[in-house]
Amino acid sequence: MTTINAATYPIHFDEKAYNELTSLISKKNYSSIFILVDDNTLEHCYPRFMQLFATDKPIEVIQIDAGEIHKNIETCMGVWNVMTELGADRKSLLITLGGGVITDLGGFVASTFKRGIDFVNIPTTLLSMVDASVGGKTGVDLGVLKNQIGVFANPEMIVIDAEYLHTVSTREIRSGTAEIIKYGMTHDIRLFNEIKDNDQVNIVDLIHRSIEIKNEVVLEDPKEQDIRKVLNWGHTIGHGVESYFLENPKKEALTHGEAIAIGMVCEAYLSSEILGFPEEKVSEIKEAIIKIYGKIAIEKNDFKAILELMKHDKKNVAGEINFVLLKDYEDFKINCKASEELIKKSLAFYNA
Amino acid sequence: MTTINAATYPIHFDEKAYNELTSLISKKNYSSIFILVDDNTLEHCYPRFMQLFATDKPIEVIQIDAGEIHKNIETCMGVWNVMTELGADRKSLLITLGGGVITDLGGFVASTFKRGIDFVNIPTTLLSMVDASVGGKTGVDLGVLKNQIGVFANPEMIVIDAEYLHTVSTREIRSGTAEIIKYGMTHDIRLFNEIKDNDQVNIVDLIHRSIEIKNEVVLEDPKEQDIRKVLNWGHTIGHGVESYFLENPKKEALTHGEAIAIGMVCEAYLSSEILGFPEEKVSEIKEAIIKIYGKIAIEKNDFKAILELMKHDKKNVAGEINFVLLKDYEDFKINCKASEELIKKSLAFYNA
Repeated sequence: MTTINAATYPIHFDEKAYNELTSLISKKNYSSIFILVDDNTLEHCYPRFMQLFATDKPIEVIQIDAGEIHKNIETCMGVWNVMTELGADRKSLLITLGGGVITDLGGFVASTFKRGIDFVNIPTTLLSMVDASVGGKTGVDLGVLKNQIGVFANPEMIVIDAEYLHTVSTREIRSGTAEIIKYGMTHDIRLFNEIKDNDQVNIVDLIHRSIEIKNEVVLEDPKEQDIRKVLNWGHTIGHGVESYFLENPKKEALTHGEAIAIGMVCEAYLSSEILGFPEEKVSEIKEAIIKIYGKIAIEKNDFKAILELMKHDKKNVAGEINFVLLKDYEDFKINCKASEELIKKSLAFYNA
Repeated sequence: MTTINAATYPIHFDEKAYNELTSLISKKNYSSIFILVDDNTLEHCYPRFMQLFATDKPIEVIQIDAGEIHKNIETCMGVWNVMTELGADRKSLLITLGGGVITDLGGFVASTFKRGIDFVNIPTTLLSMVDASVGGKTGVDLGVLKNQIGVFANPEMIVIDAEYLHTVSTREIRSGTAEIIKYGMTHDIRLFNEIKDNDQVNIVDLIHRSIEIKNEVVLEDPKEQDIRKVLNWGHTIGHGVESYFLENPKKEALTHGEAIAIGMVCEAYLSSEILGFPEEKVSEIKEAIIKIYGKIAIEKNDFKAILELMKHDKKNVAGEINFVLLKDYEDFKINCKASEELIKKSLAFYNA
């Protein structure tokens, strides 16, 4: 797969990416290398990484607990302290090897350690390959609020090696697939159709095309002033649903993709009501999503709490909930508003 | 006093600065305004600020505990949570009203909240006027390590109103004076001479000239790759001494300026040994510093711990302690090394 050039850094694919990483490290002459992993990636990904990666610099591995619940400032404190104890300096490099928690948190830890050291992202889950590791967003959650604390900071390089996908569950693959479907609906319907119509897909091709789309959007609007908001398709309601299931002890937590998939169904409904998005496509989306993700029970008395959580979304200004909606496939409109009544109706539509 | 233009923002002086602040707020159309204060500045500075500042936007005051010991991530967590509860969004403005703890911590909190909101610094101590609030550095301490966690981020504006200096102690004024002396030795010896030779000085003039010097240095090298390191004159040993006195329960904590003043004496000694800085100027510095700051007891068995703390200084790479030293007044050299033996000798020189 061909290299994709992001704003200030390359995204390399396949095994040749490790040679590029080795070159970067000798060119930049880092003083030491830190590799951030969690218990899963230490066991399942780190061996492959060390087989393909060569350096004569000192290497230290820092392990954190796996899971979104650990994507917080307390975990950052732990990593900052370990890096300090191990003598990390301004010329150290942090390599993140893991899913979105590792790449988001690791990028934030690196960008704030001694006011910023270099980092390289090696996403190992589908979700982090097509979304979290690309685009310069780093951050951690504050309580139930996702990515409330963070900075915009670019890695020196991203390594995309689809072999790591053999180490993750099919549920994780389904989760990342939701982001690919998202890019399909807003920019290239082929992606949605291939997933919808086939049991077997060429995943490396879908990843490459997804990153291409995300990269084009981010290059145009890195700080999310404007057009980058399109990447939040399905996410306004999706994040509310995700936070609600995470904080509610009676609910089993959803994956990010499962929540975003629900969000896309609801926001397709809003698109139809507000922008005249064709009703048959709303049905097509609902049917495809439920076929892939199953039907999640969201009851009527969950709606109010989900709405409250949506109001804390970072995209909102002056308390107004902000949507990107579709006029048609590949034809979106940012900065749309919907009444609370209509948002509740959209949740009821998913639920029906 | 004339406005100083920093990289991306103006530094306004005196009462007219409040009009500029009012203009900024209406031009940027912020959704809400948060004012970060500590117990001292809430009581002594906030009333003056509210008298001179006019806005029709919603204002919320956030108070933290005063003191360097609270300049940490736990305090940031508190502020992030309060801002979240009060509905701060990406178009909110944070105004910091206080000393270096407030401006450094506030800048960091703002730069990382929802990946960055605007902030304005209003320093109320001499130290923060001439140093902390200018130059784009934000951050908090990690344990005893000063500013270990932070980012480079510029405010939208700085307001310098020397009237606030009536609210601080003479010990604080002496602390800030050390930074003015620093600019004097490295860039404009007039500043050092005026302080050394006079009991009464025109403080507003000294502040304005100090900021001018710092701003020129920062414009040339914003990220401290190179020439900006000159601002660490006296700080390599000074930070070690400051951390040591802070963490040692048997010692009374020093102000930043008191520690930096000791650092300048020690580093003048190193300058003489390593770069041939004239010995009579070393004596002149030691005499002037002890006259202003008194003699602090640093015993021989403190030296090792101070050296250990110096090794964690952010400026170090690969474990080597990095100094800026003087060949003469207004003639410095960055990236100098000194043996541990010589560093201990320089502490003994101060102590003699």
